[in-house]
Amino acid sequence: MTGADRRPRALVVVTGSELVRGDRTDLNGPFLARELLERGLEAARVTIVGDRPDELEAALHEGLEADLCLVSGGLGPTHDDRTIELLARAAGRTLLLGPALEEEIGSLSRAFATRLGRPFADFEPGVRKQATLPEGARSLGLAGTAPGVLLDLGACVAVALPGPPAELQRLWARAVETEPLRRVLGRVRPPRRHLLRLFGVSESAVARALTEAGGDGNGVEVTICARDFEIHVDVLLEEGAEERGETLLAGLRSPLERYLFAEDGEAVEALVLARCRARGLTLATAESCTGGLVAARLTSVPGSSDVFRGGVVAYSDASKRDVLRVPGELLRSDGAVSAAVAEAMAAGAREHLGADVGVSVTGVAGPAGGTAEKPVGLVFVHAVGPEGGRGVELAYPADRDSIRRRATTTALHLVRRVLEPGFPRG
Amino acid sequence: MTGADRRPRALVVVTGSELVRGDRTDLNGPFLARELLERGLEAARVTIVGDRPDELEAALHEGLEADLCLVSGGLGPTHDDRTIELLARAAGRTLLLGPALEEEIGSLSRAFATRLGRPFADFEPGVRKQATLPEGARSLGLAGTAPGVLLDLGACVAVALPGPPAELQRLWARAVETEPLRRVLGRVRPPRRHLLRLFGVSESAVARALTEAGGDGNGVEVTICARDFEIHVDVLLEEGAEERGETLLAGLRSPLERYLFAEDGEAVEALVLARCRARGLTLATAESCTGGLVAARLTSVPGSSDVFRGGVVAYSDASKRDVLRVPGELLRSDGAVSAAVAEAMAAGAREHLGADVGVSVTGVAGPAGGTAEKPVGLVFVHAVGPEGGRGVELAYPADRDSIRRRATTTALHLVRRVLEPGFPRG
Repeated sequence: MTGADRRPRALVVVTGSELVRGDRTDLNGPFLARELLERGLEAARVTIVGDRPDELEAALHEGLEADLCLVSGGLGPTHDDRTIELLARAAGRTLLLGPALEEEIGSLSRAFATRLGRPFADFEPGVRKQATLPEGARSLGLAGTAPGVLLDLGACVAVALPGPPAELQRLWARAVETEPLRRVLGRVRPPRRHLLRLFGVSESAVARALTEAGGDGNGVEVTICARDFEIHVDVLLEEGAEERGETLLAGLRSPLERYLFAEDGEAVEALVLARCRARGLTLATAESCTGGLVAARLTSVPGSSDVFRGGVVAYSDASKRDVLRVPGELLRSDGAVSAAVAEAMAAGAREHLGADVGVSVTGVAGPAGGTAEKPVGLVFVHAVGPEGGRGVELAYPADRDSIRRRATTTALHLVRRVLEPGFPRG
Repeated sequence: MTGADRRPRALVVVTGSELVRGDRTDLNGPFLARELLERGLEAARVTIVGDRPDELEAALHEGLEADLCLVSGGLGPTHDDRTIELLARAAGRTLLLGPALEEEIGSLSRAFATRLGRPFADFEPGVRKQATLPEGARSLGLAGTAPGVLLDLGACVAVALPGPPAELQRLWARAVETEPLRRVLGRVRPPRRHLLRLFGVSESAVARALTEAGGDGNGVEVTICARDFEIHVDVLLEEGAEERGETLLAGLRSPLERYLFAEDGEAVEALVLARCRARGLTLATAESCTGGLVAARLTSVPGSSDVFRGGVVAYSDASKRDVLRVPGELLRSDGAVSAAVAEAMAAGAREHLGADVGVSVTGVAGPAGGTAEKPVGLVFVHAVGPEGGRGVELAYPADRDSIRRRATTTALHLVRRVLEPGFPRG
């Protein structure tokens, strides 16, 4: 990366035994990495360590060799929460009890003890532990009884944040407002970032388009990645590369236009709801093999209830017949997994849930239930709106979860399509 | 940890720019960590680095100081896939082209080129690159065109695996069968592991039970963690600590008996389906604020279709009335978010989807839509089976996603409850 050597180096250290055991997937490393990148700084590494003191101390030591060291976890009141003690040791600072902090944490703990009906004495060692910081460190405020901690060592600024993601995010917002972090982050400029999101095209076709458009380099960095069955093209422009970047973006947009559906990060379910809302339309779902995932994604969006009427998970032939009024004749002649049944399900959802737009999914998610004629991975999706409907047939053998997720994403994109201006000619 | 110093030290290095940018959450580190732990080895750390050569080389260098170094990613054919080259440099080995490997990768690439209608010459540099390994390394077989690589340095065994999780897992299975890995892993013994899973109890109450049962230590390590609104108690017993472990487990089981629902990792949705299947019962759902998540979790289980009849996502009053036949009167008097409507929805699902067991959720997931009387986080869940029904009221203000997920888990556990022997007296 051009100019990378002049940039401050940032390290993230994440601690937690459950993380090095694979019991939990760390979310704080990715969050902090994203926060840094948005400010123009790519994390040099994210180190995940358990609570073994030697391993944690070594990781903190490495962290303090960077310009910025962000630490997640290990701030609790118990003996195996060692971040502060080991940070002090790695920084060569003594530990000091902060009387004001002790009072702040103490009053919280007292209230807590009262609520639990336990003597405050039980909490006192924890209070003293949590009020003890490396010399020169400052509290960023409390998360529960744990203070976030900022330690400015001149060459390195270290920030220790609590492990629970919501707490970490809250105290991180405070950390970025402090003078030491402004100083480090002031040395970089956020890159301009463009995000192209495509659906219905392969990663390799996008890679080919990139090559044909001249490729990246010279301050323009392009990452192509398949994410949840969409293709995301991330274009980072360094200072001075704007013009070259715009040319490249134009060179990508033109051959990929028909697949390009967004230039921001808004999820397709939010996009579909917004499009319905703008046109005053309501929406209903009818799902078989996706078992409610389409409805769940739509309703994950706050405020979806003004557009989304409801859905039916028709997992049996009987429910397709009785609730969605799919003709029994059709189920017998074409089978539940068929284009005709998908169309009837979408129409049924629209009609019987009283919506303007209906979308349906029916397929074989496996691992059992496939036949030579209708193998695992065969899925029919149908969407119908005021301007008519469209069906799609998928045939991607994969694991159950992938088949269901791909079908869900496809269903949402198909709704987007049938609501596009110009449909059904577009 | 007792005896930790005699154990081999294992490091995991994960490479990928998207990972240090927070664009994607790494799944390979947790997978490899779990695999190691099952064999008795806790990873000392998981290092995540981008594809900057200096950072990756430094991470590999550290990895080679351990007894076992597992590397994920960076094996592709393009210039920014540098794992093999930098592994050789870190190990002080020269790179050698393997003619047999070149032929193996070449024939694959030739077929690929033909399929794409492109000249093989385009692929040749990539083939040579991927067939070039550190001196003394061996291929573990191909993932796409990338070989997994095993390098036995005596003091350290290094294994480089491809980044796509399915490929990594496939080649990891081969790696553990090799002599060098058997040698390293033969130095440890898998700990006995007990997993207690509880629902309806707080983490701190479990922590108190642990203290009262004598606490951990002396070869017994206990981790308590809240996971998706259940509490998981993970008990690891080292050799010789079996007796002490059994005593501790008994001391935990006894006060927590009514919350303990499993001593294995089977998901509650699978458990509920198995219980229905064993009794020959069918199941249906009626969801409002969870928007299909309960149905989606049930249908995530292969073979769920023999038990799960279907579900209704009744997101509007009209759909509650028209599809589930919830009396309009009740919706007016009690409101859609009420215990009575939850009960009527569960009954409606059971009746109108023709199932033996019905479960419903209705609530305010927020962020908008809350009132003083019915605030965000208020959720009613009801389950009804052949022996009768039970309702639960939740009132946990939180973000939309947490409220929905908590309600979903609660609904599944409530079904489990109403199917328990002895219900409704139990």
